[in-house]
Amino acid sequence: MSSSFGSIFKISTWGESHGVGVGVVIDGCPARLPLCTEQIQLELNRRRPGQSDIVTPRNEEDSVEILSGVVDGMTTGTPIALSVRNKDHRSAAYDEMQHTYRPSHADFCYDAKYGIRAWAGGGRASARETIGRVAAGAVAKAIIHALCPNLEVVAWVQQIHNTVCPIQPHEVQAAVVESNVVRTADAATAETMANAIRTARSRGDSLGGIVACTIRNCPVGLGDPVFDKLEATLAHAMMSIPACKGFEVGSGFAAPNYTGIEHNDAFYMEGDRVRTKTNHSGGIQGGISNGEDINMRLAFKPTATLMVEQDTVNDAHEEVRLRGKGRHDACVLPRAVPIVEAMAYIVLADHLLKQRTTVLHPFS
Amino acid sequence: MSSSFGSIFKISTWGESHGVGVGVVIDGCPARLPLCTEQIQLELNRRRPGQSDIVTPRNEEDSVEILSGVVDGMTTGTPIALSVRNKDHRSAAYDEMQHTYRPSHADFCYDAKYGIRAWAGGGRASARETIGRVAAGAVAKAIIHALCPNLEVVAWVQQIHNTVCPIQPHEVQAAVVESNVVRTADAATAETMANAIRTARSRGDSLGGIVACTIRNCPVGLGDPVFDKLEATLAHAMMSIPACKGFEVGSGFAAPNYTGIEHNDAFYMEGDRVRTKTNHSGGIQGGISNGEDINMRLAFKPTATLMVEQDTVNDAHEEVRLRGKGRHDACVLPRAVPIVEAMAYIVLADHLLKQRTTVLHPFS
Amino acid sequence: MSSSFGSIFKISTWGESHGVGVGVVIDGCPARLPLCTEQIQLELNRRRPGQSDIVTPRNEEDSVEILSGVVDGMTTGTPIALSVRNKDHRSAAYDEMQHTYRPSHADFCYDAKYGIRAWAGGGRASARETIGRVAAGAVAKAIIHALCPNLEVVAWVQQIHNTVCPIQPHEVQAAVVESNVVRTADAATAETMANAIRTARSRGDSLGGIVACTIRNCPVGLGDPVFDKLEATLAHAMMSIPACKGFEVGSGFAAPNYTGIEHNDAFYMEGDRVRTKTNHSGGIQGGISNGEDINMRLAFKPTATLMVEQDTVNDAHEEVRLRGKGRHDACVLPRAVPIVEAMAYIVLADHLLKQRTTVLHPFS
Amino acid sequence: MSSSFGSIFKISTWGESHGVGVGVVIDGCPARLPLCTEQIQLELNRRRPGQSDIVTPRNEEDSVEILSGVVDGMTTGTPIALSVRNKDHRSAAYDEMQHTYRPSHADFCYDAKYGIRAWAGGGRASARETIGRVAAGAVAKAIIHALCPNLEVVAWVQQIHNTVCPIQPHEVQAAVVESNVVRTADAATAETMANAIRTARSRGDSLGGIVACTIRNCPVGLGDPVFDKLEATLAHAMMSIPACKGFEVGSGFAAPNYTGIEHNDAFYMEGDRVRTKTNHSGGIQGGISNGEDINMRLAFKPTATLMVEQDTVNDAHEEVRLRGKGRHDACVLPRAVPIVEAMAYIVLADHLLKQRTTVLHPFS
Repeated sequence: MSSSFGSIFKISTWGESHGVGVGVVIDGCPARLPLCTEQIQLELNRRRPGQSDIVTPRNEEDSVEILSGVVDGMTTGTPIALSVRNKDHRSAAYDEMQHTYRPSHADFCYDAKYGIRAWAGGGRASARETIGRVAAGAVAKAIIHALCPNLEVVAWVQQIHNTVCPIQPHEVQAAVVESNVVRTADAATAETMANAIRTARSRGDSLGGIVACTIRNCPVGLGDPVFDKLEATLAHAMMSIPACKGFEVGSGFAAPNYTGIEHNDAFYMEGDRVRTKTNHSGGIQGGISNGEDINMRLAFKPTATLMVEQDTVNDAHEEVRLRGKGRHDACVLPRAVPIVEAMAYIVLADHLLKQRTTVLHPFS
Repeated sequence: MSSSFGSIFKISTWGESHGVGVGVVIDGCPARLPLCTEQIQLELNRRRPGQSDIVTPRNEEDSVEILSGVVDGMTTGTPIALSVRNKDHRSAAYDEMQHTYRPSHADFCYDAKYGIRAWAGGGRASARETIGRVAAGAVAKAIIHALCPNLEVVAWVQQIHNTVCPIQPHEVQAAVVESNVVRTADAATAETMANAIRTARSRGDSLGGIVACTIRNCPVGLGDPVFDKLEATLAHAMMSIPACKGFEVGSGFAAPNYTGIEHNDAFYMEGDRVRTKTNHSGGIQGGISNGEDINMRLAFKPTATLMVEQDTVNDAHEEVRLRGKGRHDACVLPRAVPIVEAMAYIVLADHLLKQRTTVLHPFS
Repeated sequence: MSSSFGSIFKISTWGESHGVGVGVVIDGCPARLPLCTEQIQLELNRRRPGQSDIVTPRNEEDSVEILSGVVDGMTTGTPIALSVRNKDHRSAAYDEMQHTYRPSHADFCYDAKYGIRAWAGGGRASARETIGRVAAGAVAKAIIHALCPNLEVVAWVQQIHNTVCPIQPHEVQAAVVESNVVRTADAATAETMANAIRTARSRGDSLGGIVACTIRNCPVGLGDPVFDKLEATLAHAMMSIPACKGFEVGSGFAAPNYTGIEHNDAFYMEGDRVRTKTNHSGGIQGGISNGEDINMRLAFKPTATLMVEQDTVNDAHEEVRLRGKGRHDACVLPRAVPIVEAMAYIVLADHLLKQRTTVLHPFS
Repeated sequence: MSSSFGSIFKISTWGESHGVGVGVVIDGCPARLPLCTEQIQLELNRRRPGQSDIVTPRNEEDSVEILSGVVDGMTTGTPIALSVRNKDHRSAAYDEMQHTYRPSHADFCYDAKYGIRAWAGGGRASARETIGRVAAGAVAKAIIHALCPNLEVVAWVQQIHNTVCPIQPHEVQAAVVESNVVRTADAATAETMANAIRTARSRGDSLGGIVACTIRNCPVGLGDPVFDKLEATLAHAMMSIPACKGFEVGSGFAAPNYTGIEHNDAFYMEGDRVRTKTNHSGGIQGGISNGEDINMRLAFKPTATLMVEQDTVNDAHEEVRLRGKGRHDACVLPRAVPIVEAMAYIVLADHLLKQRTTVLHPFS
């Protein structure tokens, strides 16, 4: 069950880093949605390796193939199977890791849980697993854009190590984010961040940071009371992204700094629309979207693969030393941006479809 | 679907603040678990109103009744229905809120989503909803203790407004937490925090803070790859608690401060047990528990109900002023502690049972 | 998971025959559906014991209480908890069965599966479990009638032992069915059937039979391809009713008697509506309703509780003799009719709500 | 959701008749199960077209590829993706059906539900969809054989039109079934049945029949109370197979012929094993396996595709005449046998894994 997500718009991903390929089956996509390979490929290109000098040089085209569920450019309502074949996998680079546990990787835990693991390149725990998410996210995005043309999900790198991007969430422009290799919200910060990544990489080290994400023009009413609150399902989605260590919405971990009088978001009318004067709630109240921007932040740890020698143990339970090999990102955040957006679209599509079952008759 | 949680150990909660009562049905509890009313009542007493001078004076005994699934003090494997009748509900105190949206509450969003709401006392969005969670958590705790006698979940109030409890997670003692009204980890801090709460309340204001939670002696191997990573399901569980704005595990939002060389947790052998020298991972790697302490932190916003007049709107979309009534907590954190522990136990019980289906034959 | 059913309109039942009570939690009922206790009680009265001389004399009012999810006679979109307290349970009558397995009952299997069972009155395996289904069915019926006012589900006893009711499905009238104690489709057959039941009971024996069920004016398009075909979910629902041994739709087990030329249902136009000249398909093609009557038949075995002495074994694995005690139906079919209708409504409500998520935009 | 099945051993199938291919993703297969392509191919060969003169001449090798979840011949506990590419699809043969609804096919209902359909070859409603089931069934069979080496599922054609195979369920031998093209239980009947199929085909007609299935040496205790009774989940599985119109277990539709005294299965001891003298229950009591043979029967309608001209309508709602084209089975039953076995194994594997979560500690 672990590789499935969603209740109506349901995705099941599969695949390992150095196996035949990776992919996803989407069950529950509505019929008659225009969908083509290019839409999906566009998003995959944003997460693919080798797109700039600051990400892993693994050379993968990550060409997606639509195997089912689409006829003449329209979805049919039946499962959409999407597949990407692995091309540039060099298992030889991983021979040493067959029996040695890389620190802060999943190797030891997979062995402890299953008694077996696809060790080459991290197997199922590799970041290649996120290809299925990004592909499914492209389909979710198409649903959202068909139903809520003004809804916009924008993620960006807000912090790399100790460099913080000063642009406020409501000022961030998707085009600017996409115009720099770091995917941060302004060009000057991008340069500083990129250099920090290059410097860390040059000494075999790695960096983490924060990805922020804002959802604009979200319809009021998405999210369900109690367990499937909008922020709870978003947290589930985001905390399932490899290397993510924290999630917050609205005031988040700064909330305790405020008293209730300072924190409450007073309602007012803007024309016939109910608005709030402040947005400490981050666009969600009682687990349900209130129409204000949904602002989230995700903390990512520095990449665990390092090109320096580290203390570790092997599967014979001997203490050994290990030096990283293979091709890796010294910082995952630039490539995490499209993954965060994909997960947001997947959660929104699921809630949007679920919302149709919530009331007996539409009301105004 | 919104009021159900879990895949094997599955709970479905029901009930409103000012209705007949609240409760939960647990489907998937293993048979032959010793279980009695007292075990459940003990946990409910920790979250009930009126337990000290710093929580809401609503006077509820919250007496739980086991309606099914238990025979002669043993579970039968069939659904366990638990029910608590509401006693001290005074809807009159809420008359004004029938048509007016309380700022930063769920009122407006429920109306926008459903076109109807149980307005008295917040209805389904009331914190009384968490009774079902705490009751189910007591059952989950019994499962955990039967299968992993050394596993211990301890939550405590780590911060109220700007008062921070200095005790480190591994030093926190459950008995100390339970010995003070704030449920923080040392008596001196408790006094400061309690006074801060009293002061805020005296001016009609409220405070938020941070609840920390540590899981000790968790078996290696819990959690599933990809979407049901242990931290992702914990995040889902915790972010579904009312007023929770942020979740982090291990280094969390401090992760970006480290470089990879600083952040990686080197493995070493302690006897025949694989250990890590540091624990920035927070006890989870690749979504799976590694046997180290699982350390989480949750941010809670200040209570939205204030005894001061605030700007808001009503359901006729008029701008109005509203002064809070009813009996409320000026700070929810002392009562949130047992809720956080309950959700942790529920997640762990689910993963522990799921783990039994993960390998063909047990291995050593 | 075993006591939950449905994907959108999701029910979770609980309770044992001789425990505190029985009930159901419905998660996923749309908001703003008019709903009152009387609607539910009406259906429960149709299945309650003691309603005529040919059913069990156990004297239960089976009064339902709505515990949550309804405000001022309207559903709120949050879980609807329904509860019925047990009144007339006499465990003493079952003392002998505490250790002895009643033939063709669930006693042995529950012990083998769980190592424990609520033995009095069959516990969870008692027909009292169906109260939760009938209560939930009344809510489902309300949804259906609000959305499809012309849709009608009618079940009736078509056969008791070797007495067959000759009325054709399209001629069966709900009022006639409800007007006789057997719930068959004509008065003359009812008399014969009732006498057969009385005769069997007088010798400590019991009878089985067939319940037929027709769904009229079902909208076109309900049911999902592949695993959740309409007939597959109906079969799941019906075969889960205690004592049901077979399910068929349309031509059913008579299908092999036809060749393809004889069996195919030719399409024709009736005004602007696509119709079929025959209905061997039973209103479902490719797993999806086609607008014709959905005709089902369910086989029920004779009641397993007999007032004669039978060979059996006990939980010490000794061969013993057992004579039935307690109050039982010599034939369950008259009381099975409202249960069959309830399950049909539950399946239809789930598919009807799911259907809203199936296409991007409504089309005509 | 419609193309997913199972709760622990969960399968999601995808693909259309004339698309790129068909396949399945299995989420929840335990780790360290020996699994190779040949095991799966073996079962696919039993259902593939062109295997004898009485089935469709469509020439498909149906070569399966394992895309993920298996390393060095062992499952890893992560999703197993299986794919079969379509080869011999000739859409041209279906041009006429693009706008015309074939009688008793899914064409009209898909259009009514989705407003679009993959019309060539029936698209998702084609019997090619069952490839995913058979592939997943081979994996389920491997689980079952690893955990219950004596458990045997045998299905056979018991009836074609009016020819009935006289062999009793407990006498049926898998090797005999597999030795004749019809897959019935004795050679003489096979000859008669094969001739009946050839005769029907020669006049453009088709035949239906009954597939019986017996499960031998099933462990006691599989199946869950209430909704997921073993017979209910089997019924769901079987009734989801294309063309299946009826399902019965044990005495099935013959149950009403017996009185309770005649029908009850008396318990007795065979050594230390609890047995029943008769088996009208069909190996399941209270929804749970009792260790006796589980006997099921499934009714299949005659193939809807006929090589004669029929009355029908088109998507412009005009009444037209249609003559079947394409390559089809005049009788689906010989190829349905491995599909029925696959679905039985899938249901059993799911229950067997679920059973591990049912009791706190194993007991004897």
